[in-house]
Amino acid sequence: MTRLHHLLAAATATALVVAGTASGQTPNRKQIETIVASQHDANVQALRDWIALPTIAAEKRNVAEGAEYMRRLALDAGFQKARIVQSGGVPGVFATLDSGAKTTLGIYFMYDVKQFDPAEWSSPPLEGRLVDREGEGQILVGRGAVNQKGPEMAFLAALKAMKAAGRKLPVNLVLVAEGEEEIASPNFPTVVADPEVAAALKKTVGVFIPTTSQDQQGNAGITLGAKGAVEFQLVVGGETSDKYPKTDVHSSNHARVESPAWRLVKALDTLVADDGHTPAIDGWFENVAPLTPRQKQLIAERVAATNEADVKKSLGIGRWINNEDYQTSSERFLSQPTVNIQGLVSGYQGPGGKTVLPGRAEAKLEFRLVPNMTKDEAVAKLKAHLAKRGFDDVRVTVSGGYGPNQTDENSAFIQAQKRVFDKAGIKYTLSPRNAGSWPGVVFNGAPLNLPAGQFGISRGNGAHAPNEWVLIKSSNPKVAGFDENVLLYVDYLYEIASLGSRR
Amino acid sequence: MTRLHHLLAAATATALVVAGTASGQTPNRKQIETIVASQHDANVQALRDWIALPTIAAEKRNVAEGAEYMRRLALDAGFQKARIVQSGGVPGVFATLDSGAKTTLGIYFMYDVKQFDPAEWSSPPLEGRLVDREGEGQILVGRGAVNQKGPEMAFLAALKAMKAAGRKLPVNLVLVAEGEEEIASPNFPTVVADPEVAAALKKTVGVFIPTTSQDQQGNAGITLGAKGAVEFQLVVGGETSDKYPKTDVHSSNHARVESPAWRLVKALDTLVADDGHTPAIDGWFENVAPLTPRQKQLIAERVAATNEADVKKSLGIGRWINNEDYQTSSERFLSQPTVNIQGLVSGYQGPGGKTVLPGRAEAKLEFRLVPNMTKDEAVAKLKAHLAKRGFDDVRVTVSGGYGPNQTDENSAFIQAQKRVFDKAGIKYTLSPRNAGSWPGVVFNGAPLNLPAGQFGISRGNGAHAPNEWVLIKSSNPKVAGFDENVLLYVDYLYEIASLGSRR
Repeated sequence: MTRLHHLLAAATATALVVAGTASGQTPNRKQIETIVASQHDANVQALRDWIALPTIAAEKRNVAEGAEYMRRLALDAGFQKARIVQSGGVPGVFATLDSGAKTTLGIYFMYDVKQFDPAEWSSPPLEGRLVDREGEGQILVGRGAVNQKGPEMAFLAALKAMKAAGRKLPVNLVLVAEGEEEIASPNFPTVVADPEVAAALKKTVGVFIPTTSQDQQGNAGITLGAKGAVEFQLVVGGETSDKYPKTDVHSSNHARVESPAWRLVKALDTLVADDGHTPAIDGWFENVAPLTPRQKQLIAERVAATNEADVKKSLGIGRWINNEDYQTSSERFLSQPTVNIQGLVSGYQGPGGKTVLPGRAEAKLEFRLVPNMTKDEAVAKLKAHLAKRGFDDVRVTVSGGYGPNQTDENSAFIQAQKRVFDKAGIKYTLSPRNAGSWPGVVFNGAPLNLPAGQFGISRGNGAHAPNEWVLIKSSNPKVAGFDENVLLYVDYLYEIASLGSRR
Repeated sequence: MTRLHHLLAAATATALVVAGTASGQTPNRKQIETIVASQHDANVQALRDWIALPTIAAEKRNVAEGAEYMRRLALDAGFQKARIVQSGGVPGVFATLDSGAKTTLGIYFMYDVKQFDPAEWSSPPLEGRLVDREGEGQILVGRGAVNQKGPEMAFLAALKAMKAAGRKLPVNLVLVAEGEEEIASPNFPTVVADPEVAAALKKTVGVFIPTTSQDQQGNAGITLGAKGAVEFQLVVGGETSDKYPKTDVHSSNHARVESPAWRLVKALDTLVADDGHTPAIDGWFENVAPLTPRQKQLIAERVAATNEADVKKSLGIGRWINNEDYQTSSERFLSQPTVNIQGLVSGYQGPGGKTVLPGRAEAKLEFRLVPNMTKDEAVAKLKAHLAKRGFDDVRVTVSGGYGPNQTDENSAFIQAQKRVFDKAGIKYTLSPRNAGSWPGVVFNGAPLNLPAGQFGISRGNGAHAPNEWVLIKSSNPKVAGFDENVLLYVDYLYEIASLGSRR
């Protein structure tokens, strides 16, 4: 009997147990554990292979290849149907797995990654090199490792383990994957509005995206929402007004010719107060909901469970805004809508100086929105604000974005996450909101009005930064590695099944 | 008798005439003309060879090689002594040609060029390709073609022609060349302060830099001064304060972490008024001398002699600042000290957006100064202005600079330029000042207090820009080509000689 045959035999025996479970407990968990361990190397290699093919929407890199790869990953993991959904941009991928269960779970994947500059990395960003990291264990370094291919691959590994065990999934699955998350999902509403996709999602108890959430003390997290994000660019130059030169010209001309760079500075200056962080766009805070006492309490629990010094260190800062304490800065983190400058680009970019008057100046910006702001409201307010101040020569381009999402902590979907953690003895905090963003509003808002969230254990860091990594084998007994996260997702499927179709 | 022998014989005969000339007329000009024509191809090739070796101070490119090349060029042109003068930066080159004359003329060369990006050029920037340009004739395209190797090579060609004619120069020459003009000459005062250099310069009637000055109507120009220029950079980020992250971090953190980019915007905003061009640094206009009636009159003459539409077109603009008329904008051009943004660099620079909070923001700026401002005054006022407003986390780095220069139009040095133009029948305008800058203050200011200026005909364009070019063979009868500029420099030497050592 080969090892595989042995596992399959065990799986058959277990299948009977599965049908009978209503407790949410994973039947014969030991069996799945053994399979996951046996598939570890193949899963890690599959993650490395996926990292080697980066889809980058901003650069139109691997658009068709990335979508097709995503489709294949779904089929390989056991989805019965998977198709590419054209959206006008980088396409989406829609897949379903019907196991004849009563309950259907939605899963959201992003298959794109952030841009990267190999020169800034300690190892090639597409290699997915396995290295040891002090205090963590074996990590995998690569673009997309933690954001989001690592945890997504752990979820697919959970399905593969179930398949290898010969088990029917206790829930049906609906997967919607997009390739433009990193440019703020400009076409994702189109993917979700596809009639077949919308109909399938409507049957789910909620939609979650796999993620890592543990800190070095092993505290995991459940987040009840996320800020919205809107990305836009302000451009001034010869292309927006004949006051400005069309190309960079000799800087002596600034004595008689207007400067796009100064104009941009003047426009930018009106968007944020002199403190350098409080948004100053007219009417900006009109619809901002303050934190509830429960939300502040959840933040306090998170503050108590995490180490401020570690967080500051990971950000490379010595102080929060206004030198605030951890609780205050954490409340600010989750409650404040922001206007952030992602980048400034104008004129000469090299070492030292160069005597040019630039013909163009661009600021790349982004809003982070909190309930009850919306994308349309934010964009309209920005445009009205600039128009009122006469900045008709400053072009606004909105490149993507969506509003915030928020899910009730008493929903069955979130209760299932809590139970999984409780049963596994994993400490966790409930966060009222993720300060980062994901387009959960597409599920969470009208017309679907579904619970939406993120879920996972293990850890990683460096999203959007050089040397992004995800933990593979943890050397810290408090923290889970890749395989433990795979098992958690198996547990989650059973737990969701036990809740039936209750939302 | 070879052609060369013939020329040499003619030269010997002419030498007698030279000694006797006091009119400033070039003796046997026809002979020089013939020689210049015969040396045309070699001179153009020498220019192309020089362009092929760009010294770029900002990139520390060809530092030693460029200095040695400059030294060789001087020796090849007939300077008896030439040596490299170390300055702490890109070295200077000092050369002398003693012809036993009563009068000594100073010449200033820059042997460095501006940075370039080959992707922006129509032909390789170091090739010096010869092409035909509509309405101009044969031009040479290359970095440094007009700024400043082209006209400088024309001056060296004048010396070579005199040598080929077997003539003694009617004046002695002192050449000082620098390799850091394009980074605002941070070490040139050190070169000029070298005891041997200073002693040699002290004997000159003035110092000039070869230049092109004709417009398409053939109007040449004499400039009586130049603005000063000070280049500096403002940097904010993890390297200047622990308020900011040390690297780019996920942009969601801006809700609790200060942004270097916003801080830079806030600091910049205070430097210029809301009109986007009037400097707003405390006390900025304190020492600014208004234009005199004579200076305004000279500007009016220049305005009358040039075509406003052509100038606007060459700058790619439709309007001057405030939609002013040509006279007003020209007065502004020459009289206003400026604070220019050369470049803005922060965070993400690629297409679209990227959700980062930058760890660093830099603005590259430059002042243009008019009499009676000084570099030290401008820098001190900037620092006091920022300090007063609490911008102690904004680092100011002054990378180079010098004050303005101004020469009396009645000085012998300028009178000689006028006479050369008058005798050649070349229309010209006197400009009270060049809005661009060159470190003439090093000669013009204390302790040397020498007349200083620019001189030349022919034309070119694209200094500091892609596709920089200089005219080689003019198809426009009103405009001089390379050879005519060479002859003008020969005439200038005789004219200077006729004025004796009068300043």
